[in-house]
Amino acid sequence: MFISFEGIDGSGKSTQARLLAEMLRLQGHDVVLTREPGGSPGAEEIRRLVLEGDPDRWSAETEILLFTAARRDHMERTVLPALAAGKIVITDRFADSTRMYQGLSRGDLRGIVDQLHGLMIGREPDLTFVIDMDPAKGLARAKGRNGHEERFEDFGEGLQSRMREGFLALAREFSGRCRVVDGDRAPEVVAEEIAEIARKSLAWTQKA
Amino acid sequence: MFISFEGIDGSGKSTQARLLAEMLRLQGHDVVLTREPGGSPGAEEIRRLVLEGDPDRWSAETEILLFTAARRDHMERTVLPALAAGKIVITDRFADSTRMYQGLSRGDLRGIVDQLHGLMIGREPDLTFVIDMDPAKGLARAKGRNGHEERFEDFGEGLQSRMREGFLALAREFSGRCRVVDGDRAPEVVAEEIAEIARKSLAWTQKA
Repeated sequence: MFISFEGIDGSGKSTQARLLAEMLRLQGHDVVLTREPGGSPGAEEIRRLVLEGDPDRWSAETEILLFTAARRDHMERTVLPALAAGKIVITDRFADSTRMYQGLSRGDLRGIVDQLHGLMIGREPDLTFVIDMDPAKGLARAKGRNGHEERFEDFGEGLQSRMREGFLALAREFSGRCRVVDGDRAPEVVAEEIAEIARKSLAWTQKA
Repeated sequence: MFISFEGIDGSGKSTQARLLAEMLRLQGHDVVLTREPGGSPGAEEIRRLVLEGDPDRWSAETEILLFTAARRDHMERTVLPALAAGKIVITDRFADSTRMYQGLSRGDLRGIVDQLHGLMIGREPDLTFVIDMDPAKGLARAKGRNGHEERFEDFGEGLQSRMREGFLALAREFSGRCRVVDGDRAPEVVAEEIAEIARKSLAWTQKA
């Protein structure tokens, strides 16, 4: 089973991805917790190439190509081998983030993102948690973190609002795999709701 | 006018690209001489990512994505601005090399190469010189060079023979822009033939 966590910066998705991995491991599952961009040695190198340095050094189109290259490597080296070995893979961000950050925020390039995804990646997660969060609270939380390197967080609250709406629209578009979870609660409460959804989904998968 | 040089390693295409640039500059043209992979600061970084380290670290598909990202950056930052300023751009390798080295030699991925090119690059050179060379002679010449870093040269004579046939097939496929030049002659003789073809092509372009 392939599970992704999506949401605006500061929504708590990384924390929730980790908590779900720990919970599933306690239940005896073999879990690989990974992230994008990155998640394999090659993809982490591409991540550094994209995220370090001047944010304007790459055009939106070049950035989409680099993220798709990183995702292809991540799939080949980390995700698909783990799934083939019967493990559960949980990733902090996946293609929905590219649909949002490159497809929406840097020009109307969603069509290019989708065509590249269809051609070079293909696969979607079986289950996607979209952690919903008030942009002002998310931004305050993201800025409060030490040593964060996500330059997307520099875009400010206006963009965060657009991104929140964009993630909710994606959740409607891919309603078969997406579950929207209210992230504006204590982390352990959010985690319990997520664990319950994952449990049902896993039980359903194992029956099928 | 956008001119590319293609051919197997050791065919002399880099030398010929340089000689044509010098000749056209002597005639008063403003010429940008560039190369792929690379040709812009970002694309040169991607080049290092692909060409350094273990040749098997990237799958053929990831390599195609990285080369397409490099080409997109090269087009945006170097080729298209120069063409827009009325300059002649001469590049040592372009998309035909990806069609050959990733499309043919690393599995039958020509379809993917073409779809990515159509989606993200689009443009072809106005004139492509395919420097033809006996693979054994080309390989000896390439191996004789000091400090060469092209790992494609490690593939040996069998592959060089397939690549030669592949480049000749591309020249037939794109017969409108490709001219095959016999590279197995003294460099100044080859250069004179190339200069004559370029002169005619330029005169035709300026009339049109």
